[in-house]
Amino acid sequence: MATENRIAETSDKDLTARAGGSLELMRSETPRIHCLTNTVAQTLTANLLLAVGASPAMSMALDEIDDVVARSDALLVNLGTLDDQRGAAMIRAVAVAGRHRTPWVLDPVMVERSPARLEFARSLLAQRPAVVRGNSGEIAVLTVDGNAGDLARRAVTVVVETGPVDVVCDAKRVLHLACGHPLMTRVTGLGCAASALVAAFCVVEDDPLLAAAQALLVLGRAAEAAADSAAGPASFQTALIDRLYSMDAGSLQERNS
Amino acid sequence: MATENRIAETSDKDLTARAGGSLELMRSETPRIHCLTNTVAQTLTANLLLAVGASPAMSMALDEIDDVVARSDALLVNLGTLDDQRGAAMIRAVAVAGRHRTPWVLDPVMVERSPARLEFARSLLAQRPAVVRGNSGEIAVLTVDGNAGDLARRAVTVVVETGPVDVVCDAKRVLHLACGHPLMTRVTGLGCAASALVAAFCVVEDDPLLAAAQALLVLGRAAEAAADSAAGPASFQTALIDRLYSMDAGSLQERNS
Amino acid sequence: MATENRIAETSDKDLTARAGGSLELMRSETPRIHCLTNTVAQTLTANLLLAVGASPAMSMALDEIDDVVARSDALLVNLGTLDDQRGAAMIRAVAVAGRHRTPWVLDPVMVERSPARLEFARSLLAQRPAVVRGNSGEIAVLTVDGNAGDLARRAVTVVVETGPVDVVCDAKRVLHLACGHPLMTRVTGLGCAASALVAAFCVVEDDPLLAAAQALLVLGRAAEAAADSAAGPASFQTALIDRLYSMDAGSLQERNS
Repeated sequence: MATENRIAETSDKDLTARAGGSLELMRSETPRIHCLTNTVAQTLTANLLLAVGASPAMSMALDEIDDVVARSDALLVNLGTLDDQRGAAMIRAVAVAGRHRTPWVLDPVMVERSPARLEFARSLLAQRPAVVRGNSGEIAVLTVDGNAGDLARRAVTVVVETGPVDVVCDAKRVLHLACGHPLMTRVTGLGCAASALVAAFCVVEDDPLLAAAQALLVLGRAAEAAADSAAGPASFQTALIDRLYSMDAGSLQERNS
Repeated sequence: MATENRIAETSDKDLTARAGGSLELMRSETPRIHCLTNTVAQTLTANLLLAVGASPAMSMALDEIDDVVARSDALLVNLGTLDDQRGAAMIRAVAVAGRHRTPWVLDPVMVERSPARLEFARSLLAQRPAVVRGNSGEIAVLTVDGNAGDLARRAVTVVVETGPVDVVCDAKRVLHLACGHPLMTRVTGLGCAASALVAAFCVVEDDPLLAAAQALLVLGRAAEAAADSAAGPASFQTALIDRLYSMDAGSLQERNS
Repeated sequence: MATENRIAETSDKDLTARAGGSLELMRSETPRIHCLTNTVAQTLTANLLLAVGASPAMSMALDEIDDVVARSDALLVNLGTLDDQRGAAMIRAVAVAGRHRTPWVLDPVMVERSPARLEFARSLLAQRPAVVRGNSGEIAVLTVDGNAGDLARRAVTVVVETGPVDVVCDAKRVLHLACGHPLMTRVTGLGCAASALVAAFCVVEDDPLLAAAQALLVLGRAAEAAADSAAGPASFQTALIDRLYSMDAGSLQERNS
């Protein structure tokens, strides 16, 4: 049971180089990312995925969810604006993803605010997502000890806790990322869209811990660049998508130095 | 029964000063505003609330609506893109808000276009919202005499009728506000988002008539500033959110003079 | 049965002039366009319609769908983010449109990805939309021969197949349009919003083939202008809406020369 939290050997420079490679792969392979996500974040999520070269889809009709998930390369399950139909679609989508070994990401939005949602999140967690991404309040309520490392060990998954410093960990490794910008918290759905980016990177990077870290790094660097020219959260969002769209291994490297 | 429509003593200058104070309070207290609103307006609504410092939430699952509304500081009920589940969630949310004395705002979107929607709006109105906000067509159909003052008296609530000149009234007071910009009518969901702002101001200003007036003033001043630099409705929307984000008591005062 | 694909006599210059006239008519008549469309594209769709002077509505409650469609001037049925309630609303909306001879447009989003959706699209197609708009994959799966002309003949409708070059055809005529910009594919929901524009132009132009072509021309010219100043897909989207808003017969003519 004893595990050891080691800072992953991956240096910031290695991660940047690998993220650049993944981004190029994404643009040539245009993986299909199926997103069962809340209606508030859907548009931004789709636009962020398009900006990095992925192909988003968002349908959740029960009579087609099996087909569309089976044809997707990754799946996002986000609990925002949950309702009965959405919940039923999620259960089936996760089952299909499991059968096809399709990586999927769980975003337990506001799970700390309702017992019903917490219970549902726990039942999905038992189906072994590749990555769980939430803020500290959401992560805390999902585990006994209340921290990301504990959740990663118990749920045998990669856990991403985003905040001023992002924590990315699995049972054995921990990465800390201090990129991004405070304006990110003023754009609704950006955390949800980040989870979709993590799902997309899981297609082009086999190690889900590195996939998650690369997604956050790419988004964070684009956010830093966007903040340079932004007059507020709306012009920041516009610049963020534009920057993601033009980002490549070269500009990512530059931004890092 | 005889009531008297007095121009409220609150002068424009007083209102501006009070709105500035409310805005500062909003930023320090970050009230939770639960929004049961249409899917077209959700994203803009959330971004507007974030821009003024409030914390939006939008879930409407029946098994958690009681919990999330109970933990919110204000509630918005907007009838756009209504469906059965949404309608059921609204009825429960309004009941919970009533029990907790949580202020709530009713936005009777397009209530004049369908008898079913009108009947539903009337049943909600009987539950005593703090404020009703609509355009002249929506307000007219909700009352016998067809004007905001009549509706305010009959429903014992504050009524906001937005248009080129906004009318804000309760049974005894009437305020007229002539701020804002025509481009506001070309941004979908901006009226709906204004209703959410009214709900947010109801948390930091006890008098719902003044809360509504302050919300419209702040939004209107930001819109005027945004229009100065806009090339059309989309750049206007971006500038509007940016301006709201940077608005404070000082810039509000300046804009007023 | 033998039909002949003729290049319509309408020259590019004629089409531009007619599109300018339709745009002016739209701004003076502000037709109501009811959109049953996916939640990802709703906001952009509404903003595009507002930019050209139309009045969008999006409700889909079963108890009011008959009333709102009966009071609309055109209808859009878009199969994205389909669910049971949405599907039921579509069937009723199409029936009402048929009874009122209201023109309606079918957008068979991602119909090639799920048998259930394909079957539903076919049942709607049998109700005779004025126009069907899709990309090549969506059009191909709807007909035996897999091309737009074949579908137009079999379904007795106008078919629009958008791509690098747009094809607009009915049983006898074919138009090719090479306007627009590659960035359009990086803005989520823009194809869906284009279908709504087609519906709006069907109100002000009696010939649905010309209505579709005019809508694509106006959108394409606005896109070309927007791309001149865009730094990426998000600033492109902002500029596109702004350009549509300020476009008139004069600027359309200018852009064409």
